[in-house]
Amino acid sequence: MESIRTLRIMQETSKRSLHQGKSIGFVPTMGAIHRGHLSLVKRAKGETDIVVVSIFVNPIQFGKNEDFDKYPRDLDGDIGKLREEGVDIILMPEAKTMYPQGFSTSILMGGLSERLCGAYRPGHFTGVATVVCKLFNIVKPARAYFGQKDFQQTVIIRRMAEDLNMDLELVVCPTIREGDGLAMSSRNAYLDTAERKAAAVIYKSLLSASEMMKGGAAGPEEAKRHLNEALKAEPLIAEIQYAGAYDPQTLEELSAFKKQNLLALAVKIGSTRLIDNVLVEKK
Amino acid sequence: MESIRTLRIMQETSKRSLHQGKSIGFVPTMGAIHRGHLSLVKRAKGETDIVVVSIFVNPIQFGKNEDFDKYPRDLDGDIGKLREEGVDIILMPEAKTMYPQGFSTSILMGGLSERLCGAYRPGHFTGVATVVCKLFNIVKPARAYFGQKDFQQTVIIRRMAEDLNMDLELVVCPTIREGDGLAMSSRNAYLDTAERKAAAVIYKSLLSASEMMKGGAAGPEEAKRHLNEALKAEPLIAEIQYAGAYDPQTLEELSAFKKQNLLALAVKIGSTRLIDNVLVEKK
Repeated sequence: MESIRTLRIMQETSKRSLHQGKSIGFVPTMGAIHRGHLSLVKRAKGETDIVVVSIFVNPIQFGKNEDFDKYPRDLDGDIGKLREEGVDIILMPEAKTMYPQGFSTSILMGGLSERLCGAYRPGHFTGVATVVCKLFNIVKPARAYFGQKDFQQTVIIRRMAEDLNMDLELVVCPTIREGDGLAMSSRNAYLDTAERKAAAVIYKSLLSASEMMKGGAAGPEEAKRHLNEALKAEPLIAEIQYAGAYDPQTLEELSAFKKQNLLALAVKIGSTRLIDNVLVEKK
Repeated sequence: MESIRTLRIMQETSKRSLHQGKSIGFVPTMGAIHRGHLSLVKRAKGETDIVVVSIFVNPIQFGKNEDFDKYPRDLDGDIGKLREEGVDIILMPEAKTMYPQGFSTSILMGGLSERLCGAYRPGHFTGVATVVCKLFNIVKPARAYFGQKDFQQTVIIRRMAEDLNMDLELVVCPTIREGDGLAMSSRNAYLDTAERKAAAVIYKSLLSASEMMKGGAAGPEEAKRHLNEALKAEPLIAEIQYAGAYDPQTLEELSAFKKQNLLALAVKIGSTRLIDNVLVEKK
């Protein structure tokens, strides 16, 4: 396994591989690698010749009062896990080479980046789109892998890749969950024991709203109410930022169910912000 | 010479060429091809294996009250000139395939896009950066060619390409001029006979300010005053939007000369907006 820190070297390495007719699979991460990330790596290994994982805690996607400074970092642990998984290249750029003095470019994604999480994290998806565009240009993947847990992120990156005619395929992989259903996330590490236990309510409430949807004639309003009530039943849920039924393409709140529907939410448990979602088909 | 209208076909054609080890030179234009464009094509022919010219009057870089509708279009004439020059591929995309329904992405370039022309054409450079990013991803050039006449555009595109780690080289070619010094521009066609004659003052005033700079101890303020006075001496100059001495990297107005200095201006003759610039070295 090769570790690369220099953007130009990564780019040249990718170019060489492409010239040899090899396809590149890319898994961008912020490190603190967990089984969610590793499932993306496994998928990439099966579908492409060379797997590149980037580890970069991207400063421009964090708000001023967010957790950039305390975001979990475990480079040695990460490298061990990725090596074991058979990753070919780890790209670990430094912030000052990603955003050198005079850096001026931002990629705006309009309404898509203002809904759901965007309403609570202004600038977040501009930071995400900008760094992912850069990483795509550096790594030159044929396929890039993202987890469904960050659903809005996948919608935005897919839109950006399409709009900017990027020549790659986005692969969205299922959310990986703990035994009690909690979606794997580096931020789960922030939870204390009681909070961690309480966090199981997130997926349970999504599942129960989803069951309700599949079962009957209830509309998006009922699903939303059901979801919110289930969440509120857990006293450690400190805040529900959003929880409801959305259009998986536009991320707009649904007034009537479609064939494919997104149940999604963001809550705070203590000061830890957690998100999750499920897609629900209506026959 | 091949004409391509479908973005995906262009992208596949470029990919095939790259796999064959051929380099692509790219000249993006809005058509109404003149000797300025052809000088870029000639340069590209000498430096790359395959020359692609795009013709696309990009709607999103025109303001509401600007000249999108009346912008000169002469597709047959353009094709003739480009064939004669030995261009390999003309890319002529349609607006609805470049900006399909749901298109959401814009590339913002911060302060660089707000100075000089940006102050008079809000949104213009966002439109330029966005379309050029798309075209680069579609055409996959090793080198892209721009004229120095649109100096601010070259600064912005260079910045974008660097910031987004695009793997290509920008080549800025000298402004091509008419006999009396007027910079070649598709918009010169808007001028009537008297206006066309008056327009010679633009380059003359730049030259005379540049001579003054080289000669003596005068600072940027004097150069600016000199430039403005020379322009005002021509009664058909209806408006001076800006005219002065700027930093060629940041496009900020200079308070003291540097090694390389930009004299630049935008004026209106009648209702026709014209721009020009020269770079001036100070020893």
